Amino acid sequence: MTKKILKFGGTSVGSIERILHVANLIKKEHEAGNQIIAVVSAMAGKTNELLKLSKDVSNDFNKRELDVLLSSGEQVTCSLLAGALIKLNLKARSWLNWQIPILTEGDHSNARIINVNVSKVNDFLKEGVAVIPGFQGVSADGNITTIGRGGSDATAVAFAKLFNADKCEIYTDVDGVYSTDPNKIPVAKKIEKISYDEMLELATLGAKVMQSSAVQTAMMYDIPLEVKSTFTDRTGTKIFSQQSIDYTKSVTGVAYSKDDAKITIIGVEDKPGVAANIFEPLNKAQINVDMVIQNISSDQKTTDITFTIKRDDFSKTKKILENNNSIIYKDITYNDRVSKVSIVGAGMVSTPGVTYRMFRGLADERINILAISTSEIKLSVIIEEENTLNAVKKLHTIFDLD
Amino acid sequence: MTKKILKFGGTSVGSIERILHVANLIKKEHEAGNQIIAVVSAMAGKTNELLKLSKDVSNDFNKRELDVLLSSGEQVTCSLLAGALIKLNLKARSWLNWQIPILTEGDHSNARIINVNVSKVNDFLKEGVAVIPGFQGVSADGNITTIGRGGSDATAVAFAKLFNADKCEIYTDVDGVYSTDPNKIPVAKKIEKISYDEMLELATLGAKVMQSSAVQTAMMYDIPLEVKSTFTDRTGTKIFSQQSIDYTKSVTGVAYSKDDAKITIIGVEDKPGVAANIFEPLNKAQINVDMVIQNISSDQKTTDITFTIKRDDFSKTKKILENNNSIIYKDITYNDRVSKVSIVGAGMVSTPGVTYRMFRGLADERINILAISTSEIKLSVIIEEENTLNAVKKLHTIFDLD
Repeated sequence: MTKKILKFGGTSVGSIERILHVANLIKKEHEAGNQIIAVVSAMAGKTNELLKLSKDVSNDFNKRELDVLLSSGEQVTCSLLAGALIKLNLKARSWLNWQIPILTEGDHSNARIINVNVSKVNDFLKEGVAVIPGFQGVSADGNITTIGRGGSDATAVAFAKLFNADKCEIYTDVDGVYSTDPNKIPVAKKIEKISYDEMLELATLGAKVMQSSAVQTAMMYDIPLEVKSTFTDRTGTKIFSQQSIDYTKSVTGVAYSKDDAKITIIGVEDKPGVAANIFEPLNKAQINVDMVIQNISSDQKTTDITFTIKRDDFSKTKKILENNNSIIYKDITYNDRVSKVSIVGAGMVSTPGVTYRMFRGLADERINILAISTSEIKLSVIIEEENTLNAVKKLHTIFDLD
Repeated sequence: MTKKILKFGGTSVGSIERILHVANLIKKEHEAGNQIIAVVSAMAGKTNELLKLSKDVSNDFNKRELDVLLSSGEQVTCSLLAGALIKLNLKARSWLNWQIPILTEGDHSNARIINVNVSKVNDFLKEGVAVIPGFQGVSADGNITTIGRGGSDATAVAFAKLFNADKCEIYTDVDGVYSTDPNKIPVAKKIEKISYDEMLELATLGAKVMQSSAVQTAMMYDIPLEVKSTFTDRTGTKIFSQQSIDYTKSVTGVAYSKDDAKITIIGVEDKPGVAANIFEPLNKAQINVDMVIQNISSDQKTTDITFTIKRDDFSKTKKILENNNSIIYKDITYNDRVSKVSIVGAGMVSTPGVTYRMFRGLADERINILAISTSEIKLSVIIEEENTLNAVKKLHTIFDLD
């Protein structure tokens, strides 16, 4: 008997018609002899609708009550899907966060699942399908908590671990992870197998198929995942640990993020504490700094620090920097129209020449590189935003991904 | 320190603007030194919206899951109102059915509140406002239940009893109980005080200000109620036991119901079991029979039986009667365009001539009476539907209610 966690995202349960479709899909899996726990998101648009209601009450809506409000979205999907399964003559029931319970710790809107009482649900699985709300839990003192937006993926992975499931399948509105954005680059190819690390790099770089924190948890406990489409029968993308993958290609995918801004502080003192003095006030203002690059100083006294942020935070960041009296520098240059393009691949490290080929490819397209950053499995460059798609296409081609 | 249960119906919390208004109203009550438990309904239209979703899944949607679905409506209102109160710098929190818990027994969609754990909420009331979802509870085995549509009134009354509250105020979109329908009869007057019994007669006869079952519970435990408007400062209608009311008028109000149908079975055998034979199959078909009138038989052998039903059930009832072989009769007459007009008043029984004045008043308007039925505090007549408003106006005038 195989035990499966099947997670359905908001678009997969976005209408009654789709919920009925999902019910049929679950029925097939159940009739094939699998024990099924279905983890569901709120119907597409529902969470934003509830958020808007809370904002109409107050821009600083109480976080405890916000969790009570938002958790109702998955509760609705749970009951509708359980009802749809019962209509198909399956035994099924919704299990709400407090009925299991799904125990969490941490702040409201940002809690973590720490334990789940598996016994009652396991008993139920012998006869029927359990339908579980994603994205939520209950604290030790009996308050409803949510585990961050998009947290239904995290619920699915936590359940896979705690129920010792054989499979964890993430059903979504795309049929897997692609070598780059298929909407923009038509030659993008679906990736059959990918490592957790690569998936993380691709996810944080804009391939929003799964929440990064959920992939991290899966990696930590070595839980194999499969991302697949709710709406087609095609096989999806399997996500494993790096060891289980036989790399035939050095580069797995090309990711990019737009709407970035780049700031370079020229001629700052090269001494301990300078970087901290720059970034501490940004952190306090909740500005998310992405890439940070600092070269070895040429004159042993001063250096240049470049970093990128989201364009939305640009004017706020500029103001904070200009009012920051704790740093001494010669000049600041700004560019609020840049993008980050990255090649990702666990095979990169063992393949010579990847870096050179990337720079040569961009040069051939006359694309100027404004900054470079690398990690074990990723190589990112900052370029002018207008060159983004050209760069992605070129890199996709030269690394044999078309 | 006065402890108050304040119940807010669907229209009172039908938009964010109205929820903010209700929060201000509660703040005033709280600052006046009252301990407040607010019982809230789902936002107007929400329950029907959720019901429609369930019907789109299945016309026979599982009742357990329906309760999970519908209960989310009040959960949303609870969190929004609690958030609005916190924004006004009050201490407040939502208390969901399972967090208190509100213990119920009985079937899904038709449960009754049997107990509420008051200690935690009572502790909280010392500092803040408790916001409670109406219409729902949790069964002993941990399932969400609902207590029937409109059941938020019942929740308020049960809380008034179990929390030993000093007052139970039902806030709604009208400013009290009227001597007749103010939308149709402009001279209708708001009733200042009314007995439970009168309220019940008026409620079941069409003055849908409060759910009847909630009024019955209030009567059983002698819990004084007040029905008032959320949107004006006017005093509402107080509902007491009959003993506490000093009747200056014989008739308190004039109620009417339209869309009725009348059926008379002529010349049925006058022997035991005949009425049962007539009504048993109607009961089985879930047809709700309202008035039943049977005269003493004139020939000692046969009698006539008249009864009324809702017009929607008319053709079904006709068919059942015509196929009923267990009754022998001469003829059946039908009239599917009748209405019931009633005068209600606890003072009627001690005032001579009320019956005569009613019949004379209708005769003056040339309104023919098709059937008559009386109780301790009510006198109802069946008339042709086209005469309804004329009859109500006339009775309202002659009993000094204008």
